[in-house]
Amino acid sequence: MTPTPLAVLGARSKDAARELARASSATKDTALHAAAAALRDARESILLANAEDVRRAEKAGVGTTVVDRLRLDSARVDAMAAGLEAVAALPDPVGEVVEGWVRPNGLRVRRVRVPLGVVGIVYENRPNVTSDAAGLCLKSGNAALLRGSAGAIESNRAIAVALRAGIEKAGLPADAVQLVEDTRHETVREFVRLRGTIDCLVPRGGPALLAIVVEHATVPYVVDGDGNCHIYVDLSADLEMAERIVVNAKTQRPSVCNAAETLLVHAGIAEQALPRLAAALGGVELVGDEATRAIVPEIGAAVEEDYAVEFLRLRLAIAVVDDLDAAIAHIARYSTGHSEAIVTSDYASAARFTREVDAAAVLVNASTRFVDGSELGLGAEIGISTQKLHARGPMGLRELTSVKYVIEGDGQVRP
Amino acid sequence: MTPTPLAVLGARSKDAARELARASSATKDTALHAAAAALRDARESILLANAEDVRRAEKAGVGTTVVDRLRLDSARVDAMAAGLEAVAALPDPVGEVVEGWVRPNGLRVRRVRVPLGVVGIVYENRPNVTSDAAGLCLKSGNAALLRGSAGAIESNRAIAVALRAGIEKAGLPADAVQLVEDTRHETVREFVRLRGTIDCLVPRGGPALLAIVVEHATVPYVVDGDGNCHIYVDLSADLEMAERIVVNAKTQRPSVCNAAETLLVHAGIAEQALPRLAAALGGVELVGDEATRAIVPEIGAAVEEDYAVEFLRLRLAIAVVDDLDAAIAHIARYSTGHSEAIVTSDYASAARFTREVDAAAVLVNASTRFVDGSELGLGAEIGISTQKLHARGPMGLRELTSVKYVIEGDGQVRP
Repeated sequence: MTPTPLAVLGARSKDAARELARASSATKDTALHAAAAALRDARESILLANAEDVRRAEKAGVGTTVVDRLRLDSARVDAMAAGLEAVAALPDPVGEVVEGWVRPNGLRVRRVRVPLGVVGIVYENRPNVTSDAAGLCLKSGNAALLRGSAGAIESNRAIAVALRAGIEKAGLPADAVQLVEDTRHETVREFVRLRGTIDCLVPRGGPALLAIVVEHATVPYVVDGDGNCHIYVDLSADLEMAERIVVNAKTQRPSVCNAAETLLVHAGIAEQALPRLAAALGGVELVGDEATRAIVPEIGAAVEEDYAVEFLRLRLAIAVVDDLDAAIAHIARYSTGHSEAIVTSDYASAARFTREVDAAAVLVNASTRFVDGSELGLGAEIGISTQKLHARGPMGLRELTSVKYVIEGDGQVRP
Repeated sequence: MTPTPLAVLGARSKDAARELARASSATKDTALHAAAAALRDARESILLANAEDVRRAEKAGVGTTVVDRLRLDSARVDAMAAGLEAVAALPDPVGEVVEGWVRPNGLRVRRVRVPLGVVGIVYENRPNVTSDAAGLCLKSGNAALLRGSAGAIESNRAIAVALRAGIEKAGLPADAVQLVEDTRHETVREFVRLRGTIDCLVPRGGPALLAIVVEHATVPYVVDGDGNCHIYVDLSADLEMAERIVVNAKTQRPSVCNAAETLLVHAGIAEQALPRLAAALGGVELVGDEATRAIVPEIGAAVEEDYAVEFLRLRLAIAVVDDLDAAIAHIARYSTGHSEAIVTSDYASAARFTREVDAAAVLVNASTRFVDGSELGLGAEIGISTQKLHARGPMGLRELTSVKYVIEGDGQVRP
């Protein structure tokens, strides 16, 4: 079967978006619950489809981490359904009056949240994104145009079929969720150039995808970028706390963007801190600069690149810095602007760090792992923005909306 | 003299941005006042430089509208200086806590406004933009990297020299404001690809500039697009009010983006309304559809394109529509998403229009000319966004900021 051309899918998404923008919260919530029920009902077909994707991946010799991300089981299907129900329980951002005021001439002005329209998502081998993204878009009144990877196509298709059936049952257009089935590599370019159709693109993938988006996209997009996250242990740090935070940030889930990649230690506390931290980080491959290795010789030698990359595994780069200024300068040089933390007991250090470090999130005495939509209380997230326009940090439902000025008068004209 | 390479200017802007981000409101306001004083002091050199630009433009046979925009006089220099002082009097958006909450685990979360960093502006022959944009960027803690046109280069240079001197006097880096002096056409492309340097680009110009930005930009940008603005006169409209609003929206300043370009009239009121409106619009070239011309035969015949373009002059397209649905459908088809107005006495029509019309601003019983930063109370504007991401509608100081998460804890780690 020939896949439906992208332009046709796009036009359908736009039509669906118009209907969704007018849908009441109650209707959208009903649709989310119906979609959740439909997912559970389709459990068997989803798992069968997924088994085929997994078989193909294994046959192709794909790494086990990738296969793990791809693989679904009954519990994961339940988790997707529960995710939709959790989104239904969140407050609807659409219609929220952000602010309002009256002008001296009597004009009543207010800014009201409205859906973006069509949200395009490009993502890799995680079939749960199909359901999670569709749920967030639906709740925020947006049509979701989903472009998953070839490797997960069978799973994605089975999930999308179920979601669409549920949505339609609730009286909303099935095209609220559409899956692009043409997963040839070259169609990504075409996808990111659907200007006038896609109101917001969220690319979720590695540097290769991001490069395509930056170079070729004509649609507005929000970058979900890398996290080369630092933890700076200040002179005044409580070392027990520092140990707890560094271990958590590095090891609790090393493969994610808010995991720590570099540890900076103030020179005045390095002799006490480094041996203790190195011991606590057993199982983590440590590399450090000369000052670090002078204190803990077992630590390997770091090269410049170690400070610049996101390892996404149990490896940590360490550097000793002379003071807070040097720590801030190091971060300014290597940070990807995701999440940066300081461990300190000093009021002024905390204040300067939070003010001067330029990142989506700056943390004092807490693990970088908290920079996440659920952990911060947004309910769910469609990604974590590392850019400064529109959204910065975890993107929840509000970040999937725009704002419209509504101006009401009694015949006012401009003098 | 060879102009400074763009990469060098960019690096200087980034350095300046770091200092500006830390500057207090008091320092920034002092700098704005000093820049205003410096502009007044440099009045003579600015007017001399401008005279040269004007001479060149006239010699090149440029149209009088363009020359008018380009030409400065003593009052216009005063207005630029007063503009900077007015910006100084506005509240500083930087540091504003947008919202904040405490998580169940005791983490204190807040979202704080921070400057964007380096704001790039590409603009045409209006030398006042050099001063206006620099002032808004300075107040919001951003470095301004200004790329004016070749036609205004002498004026822009004289203005930038004065602004930089004033800013430096107040102890802030002169590079807070930099003018790109290489105004060759091809360098616009290079400018819009300064990724990692320009945090936000605001292109202010016509469709040709916008096309370059959409096709080539790798930096984030906010589109200040066209305004094909409609006024819909509903069945229940007060015709005296409709007349006042239509005349104001079309004729008060026809060359700007928030002027009306199309008039839609409900069929049920067209026989009464059209002759009256046509008479009131004396001096405006009117073109209409068949239904319109059946009522007022003097009106010229409109072609499809008349409904799609922004005339920016005393020409108005008219169409009779069957009802509110047809009006909304017409607007959905031709609107550029700028400003759309309804004149009505009917509660439900007003509610539906404001809800269903998708535009940066929707107005009830008021002239579209109010969609402007000063008129809405934002103080000043750097442009009017017609996109949905980041900013929509008039962009004031707040729209020149981003937000940073600040998360404070007592040693929390993620379980």
